Amino acid sequence: MTFAATVLTLYPEMFPGPLGVSLAGRALREERWSLDAVQIREFATDKHRSVDDTPAGGGAGMVLRADVVAAALDSVEGQGRPVLAMTPRGAPLTQARVRELAAGPGVTLLCGRFEGFDQRLFEARAIEEVSIGDYVLSGGEMAALVLLDACIRLLPGVMGAPTSGVEESFESGLLEYPHYTRPYEWEGRTIPEVLRSGDHAKIAAWRLRQAEIDTRLRRPDLWERHEGARVRSPSGARREKD
Amino acid sequence: MTFAATVLTLYPEMFPGPLGVSLAGRALREERWSLDAVQIREFATDKHRSVDDTPAGGGAGMVLRADVVAAALDSVEGQGRPVLAMTPRGAPLTQARVRELAAGPGVTLLCGRFEGFDQRLFEARAIEEVSIGDYVLSGGEMAALVLLDACIRLLPGVMGAPTSGVEESFESGLLEYPHYTRPYEWEGRTIPEVLRSGDHAKIAAWRLRQAEIDTRLRRPDLWERHEGARVRSPSGARREKD
Repeated sequence: MTFAATVLTLYPEMFPGPLGVSLAGRALREERWSLDAVQIREFATDKHRSVDDTPAGGGAGMVLRADVVAAALDSVEGQGRPVLAMTPRGAPLTQARVRELAAGPGVTLLCGRFEGFDQRLFEARAIEEVSIGDYVLSGGEMAALVLLDACIRLLPGVMGAPTSGVEESFESGLLEYPHYTRPYEWEGRTIPEVLRSGDHAKIAAWRLRQAEIDTRLRRPDLWERHEGARVRSPSGARREKD
Repeated sequence: MTFAATVLTLYPEMFPGPLGVSLAGRALREERWSLDAVQIREFATDKHRSVDDTPAGGGAGMVLRADVVAAALDSVEGQGRPVLAMTPRGAPLTQARVRELAAGPGVTLLCGRFEGFDQRLFEARAIEEVSIGDYVLSGGEMAALVLLDACIRLLPGVMGAPTSGVEESFESGLLEYPHYTRPYEWEGRTIPEVLRSGDHAKIAAWRLRQAEIDTRLRRPDLWERHEGARVRSPSGARREKD
């Protein structure tokens, strides 16, 4: 099955862009995913092909018109694929959501520009508002590229080693443990001895401990959620992520 | 002053990519920012030009070698610009950090691939580990594009209206209020009457209230921090962000 991505944007020339290179680019050529970039402006109805107008109530910038964007969206043969609008007002994107999307038939992505979309669009259509982080971009295109990249690498056959991906950051609610590789000594710093022991159980325990230490120090928010999940687990044993 | 971006990557062909289009592209041509994409592989020392090796202690994937990446980094005329490595183990990128970076001389960005960098790199060099969100990408390139886009739009002369940017999501610790524009009625839905009142104080109060409601419902984490900041304010009055 091909993961089908349709992107509605004022800048279709931004796609596939960096997704045409490397792993994602090869997967695109191998038809493991497909990409259709739709120019929203083609759905404008006036002779100036306007897609935006000034904000009701005043203020800086321009707002994307609900009627034009809805017409563009309604033209897409969505076939049950979820529609996501990339906006800083959305729910934060998580690895769990990425994994769900990657397991599905694909996505339709709406890329905003200017001050964003007319809010009525979200009341009138089934659209999931998604944010890739707590910062503001010049438009939704870069966020769409990020979301697609995160999904595509999880599609069957895309990553070299099929086991990469299960021990990563966020998959277990922890940051990933630190990595080391050759040379053994570099600028006076050596690889931790335990990693050269060949004792797999000891190495796994060390890595888990490092992941826990780094998560607690670097991401107290993640650590709190992780510890909360453990406490709520009825057996008291370490709970695997569902 | 030009904001100077140097990107160290195994895929220099990904740059400027989408940053060559639209606002950022025009700003690049106008020399409001500059871009130098450095191929890390050119700093490999063996005849195979290896940049990575298997993880010490075993496991899937490959790890970027500290010696090769450090050589690439040391070759950059950094001139006091901060060095940021894009990695899911990093500190979450915030709009406040974006604003600081955009006000400075530029950035040097390290893009990882595979399982990431040899950890000793971060012990031996002054590098800020930054994450754009709690999901995993195929590499740091897409994250670097996001960080640069967020910075570039804040550079003087890049955005159309100089006031866009101060009322946005995250700038006041709240999500931005919802927007509306013409047509007045669409699919039976009308623009909220207050926005047509012409009463600027009433409109500002309505927008603040909407921003508060949406933040509380959509982002209880942001809301909690926002309320915490208010409570800690000694005067009890609404505290402006420092």
